[in-house]
Amino acid sequence: MAFDAIETPFGKSDKIIGGAGTYIAWCASNFTPVKQISVVGGDFPQSELDALTARGVTLEGVQVKKDEKTFFWSGRYHMDMNTRDTLDTQLNVLANFEPVVPESYQDCEFLMLGNLLPSVQRSVIEQLKTRPKLIVMDTMNFWMEVAMDELKKTLAMVDVLMVNDSEARQLSGEFSLVKAAAVIEKMGPHFVIIKKGEHGALLFHENKVFFAPALPLEDVFDPTGAGDTFAGGFIGHLAKTRDISFENMKTAIILGSAMASFCVEKFGTQRLREIGKSDIDARLEQFVQLVNFDIDLV
Amino acid sequence: MAFDAIETPFGKSDKIIGGAGTYIAWCASNFTPVKQISVVGGDFPQSELDALTARGVTLEGVQVKKDEKTFFWSGRYHMDMNTRDTLDTQLNVLANFEPVVPESYQDCEFLMLGNLLPSVQRSVIEQLKTRPKLIVMDTMNFWMEVAMDELKKTLAMVDVLMVNDSEARQLSGEFSLVKAAAVIEKMGPHFVIIKKGEHGALLFHENKVFFAPALPLEDVFDPTGAGDTFAGGFIGHLAKTRDISFENMKTAIILGSAMASFCVEKFGTQRLREIGKSDIDARLEQFVQLVNFDIDLV
Repeated sequence: MAFDAIETPFGKSDKIIGGAGTYIAWCASNFTPVKQISVVGGDFPQSELDALTARGVTLEGVQVKKDEKTFFWSGRYHMDMNTRDTLDTQLNVLANFEPVVPESYQDCEFLMLGNLLPSVQRSVIEQLKTRPKLIVMDTMNFWMEVAMDELKKTLAMVDVLMVNDSEARQLSGEFSLVKAAAVIEKMGPHFVIIKKGEHGALLFHENKVFFAPALPLEDVFDPTGAGDTFAGGFIGHLAKTRDISFENMKTAIILGSAMASFCVEKFGTQRLREIGKSDIDARLEQFVQLVNFDIDLV
Repeated sequence: MAFDAIETPFGKSDKIIGGAGTYIAWCASNFTPVKQISVVGGDFPQSELDALTARGVTLEGVQVKKDEKTFFWSGRYHMDMNTRDTLDTQLNVLANFEPVVPESYQDCEFLMLGNLLPSVQRSVIEQLKTRPKLIVMDTMNFWMEVAMDELKKTLAMVDVLMVNDSEARQLSGEFSLVKAAAVIEKMGPHFVIIKKGEHGALLFHENKVFFAPALPLEDVFDPTGAGDTFAGGFIGHLAKTRDISFENMKTAIILGSAMASFCVEKFGTQRLREIGKSDIDARLEQFVQLVNFDIDLV
């Protein structure tokens, strides 16, 4: 949970609420209760915490460090919206974050590890007395460069890894995404999701593959948080249905893509706060239209 | 119809048979008889012409200029296979190509215009006494740079335009592919297909959109001709079924993608010469698995 300041070709935001945990919680809470673990400073608005509570997000695991400041990131997107420059990063409370899993969280069956130091992600797994039914991990190229050993240790403990295409190539040393997924599966996760931004996402599992497109949009206003929102939709659907089969993961990925398509329509979490079940259902119908074809004609 | 010499990160070909018309004919002849219009030099092997005839490709409209040489292109692909450098282009017989539509071709209902000078493409349309049921046009950025007025004249006469994503942006002046397609539809074609290489293809028509993925492959060996093969599969299916509805175009695009996925597995037209109906059916089943999901669970 963080503050972001974002510049895109379409405009510039003030210092707004962001962070992987924020996007995941706003998204997943459409489908399932959420128990959040994070850390914020005394500058984080109480109203934001209250808004999450009102959506069914338990905040007992969110540490509030009154005398410190919340993590801050500032970035500028290029015209293609797939690349961005980081303008400023202030770790603040994240510099010494030691997550503590509350006793009331021990019943959690679905664990989503947002992108953070792999050792911090692992500490959450290790604090859970019963291994969750499914552990999903997001990570990024930065940890491959500065903490590859730690990353591999955590990777060996999870079921699903989510990375983008260039990260999959970097982690595996393979250019072909099919080969990259096979190498990553050998590192631990039995399922590998490779995110390709506007080009959709691939799910790999053994010799199976599924592809979910991104919805073609007139404008992508702000891609910040799209990957986290995708993760929130994915695990939210699995937690709701309690079915971790490959077949159900297909639906979960479509749902993740649908939720991400909302996220990018406005700055920050704004669009995610506005939508409800009817919006989500209508968008899912658009995905059916987008990829559904009749092969009997052939 | 041409000679190509191709270098990829996986190897280097001799001077092999290539050209948009060649790929389109090899592909479309899986689905429908083909009447070919093209020009070759005296150096073009008779055995290649015989091989096409054996597949049901009529060559009456293919001019053989005994004393001239066939068009030649040589190129080198980069590691990502999406970009390439042209090493050599020798126009030869193409420099003064004036296509002549034989009388026996006047019954053609489906016309595929492979990438070539827009004025040459238009001359074929103008020679047909009865307008075909469907005219599909491929083109490229080069003509947008040197012959935009001619391109727009031809564009106004066709039903379907096929371009890649950067060409769609260049032609329309719009970055968003959704907006680009809308602008291009106003130029004439009621259907716009935007090819994204390994990222699949989009079909736009009025306010509808359909997405066909590319099959994730372990190796893309040689992408030369993939777009032409895609075109051949697309029009081949439409000509076979004689149904030009948006719904049937969805199936046609999946078929085009399936055929293109074969094309890239070996150098040149080699793979297209090997495959038959059972290979195509098996690959279509892979596409069903790749994108099929059950949304009732949500």
